[in-house]
Amino acid sequence: MALQKRLEELAHLVNGRLIGRGDTVISGVATIEEAAPGAITFLSDQRHLKLLASCRASAIVIGEWGEGVAPEGGKDYIAVKNPQLAFAALIELFRPASMPAPGVHPKSEVHPRAELGEGVSVGAFAVVEEGARIGPRAILFPNVYVGRNASVGEGSVLYPGVAVREDCVVGSRVIIHCNAVVGSDGFGYAREGRAYHKIPQRGIVRIEDDCEIGACATIDRATLGETVIASGTKIDNLVQIAHNVKVGRDSVIAAQTGIAGSARIGSGVQFGGQVGVVGHIEVGDGVMIGAKSGVTNSVPDGAVVSGIPAIAHKEWLRAAAIFGKLPELKKRISELKKRISELEKRVEELEGNGKR
Amino acid sequence: MALQKRLEELAHLVNGRLIGRGDTVISGVATIEEAAPGAITFLSDQRHLKLLASCRASAIVIGEWGEGVAPEGGKDYIAVKNPQLAFAALIELFRPASMPAPGVHPKSEVHPRAELGEGVSVGAFAVVEEGARIGPRAILFPNVYVGRNASVGEGSVLYPGVAVREDCVVGSRVIIHCNAVVGSDGFGYAREGRAYHKIPQRGIVRIEDDCEIGACATIDRATLGETVIASGTKIDNLVQIAHNVKVGRDSVIAAQTGIAGSARIGSGVQFGGQVGVVGHIEVGDGVMIGAKSGVTNSVPDGAVVSGIPAIAHKEWLRAAAIFGKLPELKKRISELKKRISELEKRVEELEGNGKR
Amino acid sequence: MALQKRLEELAHLVNGRLIGRGDTVISGVATIEEAAPGAITFLSDQRHLKLLASCRASAIVIGEWGEGVAPEGGKDYIAVKNPQLAFAALIELFRPASMPAPGVHPKSEVHPRAELGEGVSVGAFAVVEEGARIGPRAILFPNVYVGRNASVGEGSVLYPGVAVREDCVVGSRVIIHCNAVVGSDGFGYAREGRAYHKIPQRGIVRIEDDCEIGACATIDRATLGETVIASGTKIDNLVQIAHNVKVGRDSVIAAQTGIAGSARIGSGVQFGGQVGVVGHIEVGDGVMIGAKSGVTNSVPDGAVVSGIPAIAHKEWLRAAAIFGKLPELKKRISELKKRISELEKRVEELEGNGKR
Repeated sequence: MALQKRLEELAHLVNGRLIGRGDTVISGVATIEEAAPGAITFLSDQRHLKLLASCRASAIVIGEWGEGVAPEGGKDYIAVKNPQLAFAALIELFRPASMPAPGVHPKSEVHPRAELGEGVSVGAFAVVEEGARIGPRAILFPNVYVGRNASVGEGSVLYPGVAVREDCVVGSRVIIHCNAVVGSDGFGYAREGRAYHKIPQRGIVRIEDDCEIGACATIDRATLGETVIASGTKIDNLVQIAHNVKVGRDSVIAAQTGIAGSARIGSGVQFGGQVGVVGHIEVGDGVMIGAKSGVTNSVPDGAVVSGIPAIAHKEWLRAAAIFGKLPELKKRISELKKRISELEKRVEELEGNGKR
Repeated sequence: MALQKRLEELAHLVNGRLIGRGDTVISGVATIEEAAPGAITFLSDQRHLKLLASCRASAIVIGEWGEGVAPEGGKDYIAVKNPQLAFAALIELFRPASMPAPGVHPKSEVHPRAELGEGVSVGAFAVVEEGARIGPRAILFPNVYVGRNASVGEGSVLYPGVAVREDCVVGSRVIIHCNAVVGSDGFGYAREGRAYHKIPQRGIVRIEDDCEIGACATIDRATLGETVIASGTKIDNLVQIAHNVKVGRDSVIAAQTGIAGSARIGSGVQFGGQVGVVGHIEVGDGVMIGAKSGVTNSVPDGAVVSGIPAIAHKEWLRAAAIFGKLPELKKRISELKKRISELEKRVEELEGNGKR
Repeated sequence: MALQKRLEELAHLVNGRLIGRGDTVISGVATIEEAAPGAITFLSDQRHLKLLASCRASAIVIGEWGEGVAPEGGKDYIAVKNPQLAFAALIELFRPASMPAPGVHPKSEVHPRAELGEGVSVGAFAVVEEGARIGPRAILFPNVYVGRNASVGEGSVLYPGVAVREDCVVGSRVIIHCNAVVGSDGFGYAREGRAYHKIPQRGIVRIEDDCEIGACATIDRATLGETVIASGTKIDNLVQIAHNVKVGRDSVIAAQTGIAGSARIGSGVQFGGQVGVVGHIEVGDGVMIGAKSGVTNSVPDGAVVSGIPAIAHKEWLRAAAIFGKLPELKKRISELKKRISELEKRVEELEGNGKR
């Protein structure tokens, strides 16, 4: 049977203010569109207040902006500072993840000189190579690979198919999604005539605590030294991080973005999807980059940029709005030219008349 | 020895009209460039008729547009409504796939409370977790992962390294290529100060019947509810589908495209490669999106759009053709300005003269 | 204990000219920023000479341009023709890769009718299917999949999670990084009404000798015939190569690039990251394509192109520099128009005066 909670308990849990009946019974979480009676949902923003009219949820988590909302039509409210954060806690409560139990699966392959912390889970066909260290309560799903002397910190979760190559360091409470790759060789060659000779890639990747790495993301090891993803940074699916890149703390990088070799990315940045950043540049703290942008020069702290090549976002918006009108602009120029030629003739004639 | 068929048998098989000798013996399929005597090939389009001159195939599948073609030089024809479709059937005939035999490999790991349908094939090191259901005749290649309570429909094929995470639903006759990921967590966080807190992703992915998912494609599970790929839709390699996206029926999405969270994509759409679609918008039925476009606003049914941001394709073509001439346009404007200044001086002089 | 070498030995090894003390003892390699005393580093380019001031390395590999450099502050030099290449050899010397030992892991699955060359290494949970051939000293890391009748050449390395599907051919000394896919089905369908019917993909992928394929890269098998990556070509992470593409020798393709079906790419090309190439076109030898470009037409040998659609790189640079100034250009046009209208009025008046 599903978990049931009284609304006042939930308000207490999320440190919110109850608006309405505390004894309303809640048995699940749902989106505002899909919620049925008995469910609690949330409203992230005042602008969506009109969605409440058709919402069938029994209770709604709202922001402090909503404190004046009157309970009506059988709906009750919990007002909190951060509705998204509160709702995250409620999802966790009503729909806890079901994770693999601790223990080493008999069909896994853990090297006798690997170290496993207390409560580690190693799934079927997972491999932990010699000298690797897996922290307490970390979870390696089936088919995960942890290379020689690599380490995975406490409570981290590696989903099926993840590969962490030799010597790489994954911090604590890191989540790495299916088939992501940590520590593949950087793309480095020395050219000699027509041939490209591989430059050995012997550095590592270091992923600090509380990071999340998306499915099929690839993070290359440094040539020498480290490729670093600093703590709290979230990387989406299919992102490419090249060798020797440093990404700062609490940054967010959306799907299919690529960052070329040795770029230094600040903390608190927000990258849209499919962004490209060229190598060896610096992107400052708090920078925001619009989706699909191509960043070719260093970007100062706090800048907001877009476009290929990236320019100030506001300028880009204005320019992009005109782009589609280029044919019209061109036509307008031709018309002006015609009017000028006409004027020149007329003026010439006037000048001729004056001379007479 | 290779399969041999008389041309009249093949004409019958593909429901086509024989033009030439029915007793021509065909023993294989090939492209028009590589075909040798004994092979049958196809011509998709009247415009390529000139390729026949150098073609060495014994027979050619053509469209009904080709019914007037005269057999010559030892070549015979089968005229059909849809040459590509007919040729697909001939490839299947002459070069049938060799798929793994039914049976559960002793080195796989199938949970005792998983359900396997009749004739299922489970390869070495494949994992089927508790409560998962695999439909009749489905094929799980080696190293495939099917999570807890996930299901895979009848006759579906999961190639090596595919991961279908817990609770996700894969329909019948679905093909998922190597290392694709179904059901990875959506990229959702609640911000609190500088820190991003994970919003648990507890919805699922539902892939309906007859879909195909490319290698290393990633389809994220919904936060709550479902991410849906509707029946008949084909998704190419390295495509990213974010949480809560709905893609309609019989749509085609080319490689490396990314669709952001909660976007709703219609049926019968055709997306080029490397397209990006922002979150929470609607792309209508039958929409075509040019490769590399960035779609930032909802698109009505049947529209054809391109560019970053995407605009009507025809407008984009015209604008893009002018883009490279911007320096020239700029120069032209400067020249006009000069001529205007000159004119202004002359007119001023004329006006001065008039006053005298 | 770390390897130690005298500088004159290293100069001999890389075929360079010693500038300074031959008996300086070197015990490691490092980047110019991270080098400590005892380390050797390198300087790829004369322009970075100023970095030497703060460099703590004991020795530096420099180019022949640096022969005039005077040893000072305890630093010695080796001058070579190609510093990058020389340094690659030194990395290999001081930090050799630690690769899996030869032998077939008892927890792997090698079909009795597969052929393994001398000194092959097959890791845990790796699968080699019936009829597959693995050349001498090739290394299959754990969780690798080699399909039926596929082959892998001498000394090649397949990292964890790589899948090489049936019949595909991988040459000698090829390196394939984690979770890359060789031989997934091409994206080909015959449309019939609204439905897309799969065209069986029965060709292969052929990767010639000395290639390198990045993590999570996907190379689709040909419909019929071959998708070819010619010898010496290096492909970065997350690159998509569609069916029937041919890529020439000694080419370099950066991350997240996609090449559509049947395109023919020359030898010695250099593609930036996130490039897109449409199908059925030809890109000539030695072509360079700027990052994020979309190539929609064939490109002649030696051309340098950029942009969407791609145009000559120099033209693109000039046009892109103006793009952000479009609002200004538009404003300027409006001003000119105003001035022309004003002039027209004044000229009309002058003409009227003349008539009086």
